Formats: sequence, structure tokens, C-alpha cells
Amino acid sequence: MEIAVLGWGVVGGGMIKLIDEAKTPLLKQLHVKRVLIHRPEKAVDDRCTTDINEILNDPEISIVCECIGGLEPAHEYAKKALEKGKHVVTANKKMLATFASELFDLARQKDLTIGYEACVGGGIPWIANLERIKRLEPVEAFQGILNGTSNYILSQMEQKGAGFAECLKKAQELGYAESDPSDDIDGHDVCYKVVLSALTAFDQAVDPKEVPTFGIRHLTKEDFAFAKGQGRTIKLIGQGRKTAEGVSLQVLPVMVKADSLLGSVSLNFNAGKTWSKSLGPAAFVGQGAGSFPTAHAAVQDLLDILEANSPVAAFEPAENQAGDKQTFYVRSQKISVFASVTQEKVSDDAIVTKPLTIDEIGQLLKAAKDEDLFLAGIEDD
Amino acid sequence: MEIAVLGWGVVGGGMIKLIDEAKTPLLKQLHVKRVLIHRPEKAVDDRCTTDINEILNDPEISIVCECIGGLEPAHEYAKKALEKGKHVVTANKKMLATFASELFDLARQKDLTIGYEACVGGGIPWIANLERIKRLEPVEAFQGILNGTSNYILSQMEQKGAGFAECLKKAQELGYAESDPSDDIDGHDVCYKVVLSALTAFDQAVDPKEVPTFGIRHLTKEDFAFAKGQGRTIKLIGQGRKTAEGVSLQVLPVMVKADSLLGSVSLNFNAGKTWSKSLGPAAFVGQGAGSFPTAHAAVQDLLDILEANSPVAAFEPAENQAGDKQTFYVRSQKISVFASVTQEKVSDDAIVTKPLTIDEIGQLLKAAKDEDLFLAGIEDD
Repeated sequence: MEIAVLGWGVVGGGMIKLIDEAKTPLLKQLHVKRVLIHRPEKAVDDRCTTDINEILNDPEISIVCECIGGLEPAHEYAKKALEKGKHVVTANKKMLATFASELFDLARQKDLTIGYEACVGGGIPWIANLERIKRLEPVEAFQGILNGTSNYILSQMEQKGAGFAECLKKAQELGYAESDPSDDIDGHDVCYKVVLSALTAFDQAVDPKEVPTFGIRHLTKEDFAFAKGQGRTIKLIGQGRKTAEGVSLQVLPVMVKADSLLGSVSLNFNAGKTWSKSLGPAAFVGQGAGSFPTAHAAVQDLLDILEANSPVAAFEPAENQAGDKQTFYVRSQKISVFASVTQEKVSDDAIVTKPLTIDEIGQLLKAAKDEDLFLAGIEDD
Repeated sequence: MEIAVLGWGVVGGGMIKLIDEAKTPLLKQLHVKRVLIHRPEKAVDDRCTTDINEILNDPEISIVCECIGGLEPAHEYAKKALEKGKHVVTANKKMLATFASELFDLARQKDLTIGYEACVGGGIPWIANLERIKRLEPVEAFQGILNGTSNYILSQMEQKGAGFAECLKKAQELGYAESDPSDDIDGHDVCYKVVLSALTAFDQAVDPKEVPTFGIRHLTKEDFAFAKGQGRTIKLIGQGRKTAEGVSLQVLPVMVKADSLLGSVSLNFNAGKTWSKSLGPAAFVGQGAGSFPTAHAAVQDLLDILEANSPVAAFEPAENQAGDKQTFYVRSQKISVFASVTQEKVSDDAIVTKPLTIDEIGQLLKAAKDEDLFLAGIEDD
């Protein structure tokens, strides 16, 4: 089966290497015919082209692997590939979460597959295992550590007692964080992954903009010290849950028990946990990022298409629900705004709240207008 | 698709309930036509029969689910079902590990599937994920906490500082341990699971009798205290590894770091970890036992057969290799036998050894002839 890879970068390059050096009979059935690159002087071999039409108009190419990143032209190329009758595999969670309804509608019309295992959880077979559970029974909820960069920073802060800025700098030096790390540390990257997980698990497509999303940018050593004093650590958790009315998604730093499974997931590792009736809780842990684990996931999508074993995601647009009440930790220079919901005073500028919905705490955050505020959930005992 | 379930016990009963109350369109395609029971007065409905031939001779029945347990007649029934052209799904790790070559040869001749997801790791999709990795690249090694009973006992000893006998009694009261718990606490149950995992991961079938197998029966509070003092906890670990000559399998209590992933797997949960080149380390954690998680795994096998998506295991008989040198903890009344391999004296009757192969330590254990001896591996830092 002939494929084309768009972008010879971290993920695209990993895919090309895995396929070129195929180790198994099944993988040897795949062949990279074309690679879209941006600048002609970067051509590595004669498969490289700077002209997308050479790929789109080639009837031999059955699958287009989009590894460019960003919204455009990634979205345009994915759409055109589907229009031309080609399956699409992508590692681009932002693009796919943003244009999910349009692209999956098109794929269903054309009886094509969009493979997106590489979008969520790096090498963890997360999407495949959600699909597997769903064959048998509904997935009731999921929760995950889905961003390697922020988890690396959090685990450094925990182990070394270091400050946020110092740990971010270290992550950037190691290549775990980009020069503009906003998407990773402000939770947006996790938000896209939660949207794609929910679409898989619940058949419900929520607009990423509607998902309450809080990051770790304003986390301090003091916040961490409070968590540690409670036998907890802080993890950036994306989660989704079925509610009576629909689904409730959120992205939030959470103080989890240090000796719990999610509490033990350190460095740039990712983890995903599912709940369903007969299986109970199940968890998947692995490399959250990096060229080869992510490329491995994308190539697994190719093998599923090769084996004609890819369910086409079917879902409906859904509004996000506020979900259950939770207890929050809030640190703010304007902590008095939270007086009416305070359950326990932690320090002069930090409190633990009574149980509130995420919408209720959101209203108070708006009222506080404190750009340095830090918010975390506190996991039930 | 019509199926028959042999045995209306914990797993068989769970399967029947999941299928009778099917929640998804795919699962609704399965129908339990017959259930083999032992005593006619136990018949729950008119699907029950005490005559295996009513099942074997029914051409409508495509899959036989063996949930009887024990070696015979489970083995005889599985073999006859294959001879009659029926797929077999089983939760019986002892039977399948013991008769693997015979049964899989027969299945391959007849182009049939033997599903054994329920044999290893309870509800964890362990076998399926080993198969998934193997599509793309060789699995290099695996390691797992594969027995819920022993893990429950170990986690009680860790958390409560209680003795082995007391924790075993508690596990029996809760129904986690059988009245004769030998297979669970002496490591034999894990041994069968390691053999089946290796057969899947490495295409090599090792005779269970050849796998060095050590259990937790003689573990004391003092052994646990030593581990704790090192920031470690004790887990019963089954593992397999490719070596230059073949494969090396072993079952052994191991002192693992308390804050590692395997160290955090508590109560009756199971975990399996894999290593492969591009994916790196990946781990799967879930309910290790119980009616519904295990039944869930068996029903997933049925759905794979329904979707014609079951690779037929192909493997060769293999001898077990001694593998790499490891460091061991040994406590014995005859500790002087180990003088020549002692690296560190822990107490009057306990030592840490120099790195040795499992065969080398095995020779010394034979020489010691101490029935109360406790042996554990010490995981590298």
C-alpha cells in the first residue's frame, strides 16, 4: 500500500524511518512513495516534493499522513486528501479537534478512515483501547496525564522542590518544551486531546473552546508544598465523564494522591485511565511524546487501515456540561473574592473551597481578575 | 453467532450475563445457545446441559468457551471442540500453558482461533496489546504483576505492616484467595501466565516446568522491613526477555522502587509492562481478577473472532535460558551456604548477593535445603 507523508519533521521523519526499515511482514506491505517538504533544498531523497498536488493527484497513494502541525494548510490538505478518496492519518490534535465534524463527515461520506492514535498519548494505544472497550460496553469516564511537557515540569518541581520557571527552562533545554510553551503549560494541548478522547469514548464532539481549561503557568513552590503536606502531588489532568445530560470535559491541575497510579507517572510519560461497567478501572501508561513513540502510534493507524480494521468514528456535536461538584485549591492576591465558598484557609492568600461545579468556580475566577491566580482540583480520598 | 459456555461459575457466569444483557450492536450478534453444567439440579434455564456431546455435535455452535478450570476434562473438551471445527476461548491458563503446542497445532491445522485474553491479567487487554506491538516490531521484554491474590497480600503487608499468614487469611475471607492458595502464592499461576505471554510476545513456547518459579509463602515482616528501608516494596513479578540464545522467563518476588509504576500497583490489581524499540516502555494496569473483568476479556476474544480479527498464534518450542545476572536478597537459617556470593550482610540470617544468574542462585538454594528460605530479586536502580 502506497502512502505519502506530509512533513519530514519529528513525527513524519520517525514514520518514514519505521516504514523504510520495516521489521515485520505486515509493515513491509507499506511503502512511502512521496514526502511533502516545505523547502526544495531540504530534499533528502527523490521521494521529496514541494507540490501537494503531486500527492493529491497520484491515484496510487491510498493514505496521506499529515505531520505538518498547525491549523493551515494542514486542514486544507487533509480535507483535499479525503475529497480525493485517500485515508488520512494525523498526529495534529489541534487541527483535528478544531475541524472534527467537517473532516469526519467527509470521511464517512467517502467511506474512508481518519486515524488519530498519534494525536493523544504519544505511544500509548489509547484511542485503540477506547474503541476496544466500546465494542462491548459504554465508556463511562476517562482521565489522563496527556501532556509530556507539563508532566516533566511537574515531576521536576516535585522531586527537586524547584520553581516553575527553572523547570520550564530545563524542559526547553532538553527539547521537551518549545520556545513558546503556551499550548503545553496553559492546558490547550490537553484540551484538544480530551476533545478527541471524548469523541472516541462517548461519540460526542465538544468544541474545544467550550472546555474549561486551566494550566500550570502560575503554579508556585508553595502550592506544591501544600499538596505534598497532604500526601499528594500535582498533575495536569484532562478528563471526560458522561453525565445525565451529556458529557462533561475539563482540563485542570489536580492534587492527586502521591502513591496513586496517576501520582506515580513521572517525567515526560503519559497515562490514560478508563472506567466502564464490567472492566472497572483500566489504565495505560507510556511515552507521552518523542519522535518514535508518536510515529509508532501513527504507523499502527496505517496497519489498521491496511488490515481494514478501522471503525469510522461516528459522533454528534454536543455542548459541554458542568458536571459534578469538586473541591478546589485557590491561591490568589484577591482571595477575599472566594470568602463565601471557603471551606479551609491554607495561608493568607490560599484556600480550599467547598464543593463547587467548575462553572461556579469559573464565575468567581472572572470576578477575581487575578492573572497570577493558581487553581487546582483536589481529588477525593 | 452461536456459542457454548462450559461451566456456569465465576467467569462463565460473568460471560453469560454480559452476553445476555448485551449493550452494543456488535455484542448483540453473540448468543449463548448452550451451557455445560456438572450437576443437573443446578440447571438455571433450558440452555443448561450435563452432556458435552450436545455441544460438540451441534453444528450451529461456532465457539466453545472453556470456563471449567483444571487440566481435565477442560483439555479434552477444548481439543474435541477444535476437532469438531469450533473456535475455543478459554480463561484456563494452567490447561492452555500445559497443552499449548498440541492445541495451537490443532487450531492452525483447522484454521481456527484459540482466544486466551482472559488467561492473563484479568481485564487488562494484555494479549491484544502484545499482538498489536508485534504487528510493527518485536517485543523485547515484558514484566508484570499477574496475580491479584498475591498482590493483595503483598499490598496489605506493606500498608499494615502485618504478617503473611494474617494477610492470607484476610484475602481468603474476601474471596481473593482460595482455600488452597498454593498456585497463587507459590508463583505457579504467574508461571502459566508468563508462558502464555512469552508465546504471544516472542513466538516461543517454554514448558512451564522449566521456568524458575519462586513465590511469597515464606516472606516475613522482616524481609518487608528491609525493602522499605531501601525505599522499595515487594511485588511478585513474572517476566520474559529475549536473549542472544532465545528467551529467558522467570517468576520471582522482586524488591521494586516504591514510587515506580509497578510499585504503585496495589490491592488485587494487575499490571503488565512491555519494551519494544520504537514504542519504548508501555504499561497496562487494571483489575486482575473477578468475575466481570475476566469475563470482559473473554468476551473481547469472542468479538475478535466475530470480527475475524484474531491472529492465530504461531510459535516454536523453546528451552528457557538463564538470562542476565541479577542481585538477590536471601534470608535463610542456612545463610552460610551463600557465603561465597555475599555482597552485603543484612542481618544474621539475611544477605544481598553479588550479581548471579537465576540458575546460579538456584544451585545454592538446592544446596541449602531450607524449606523456609525466602528469595527475592532486587531491581536495578
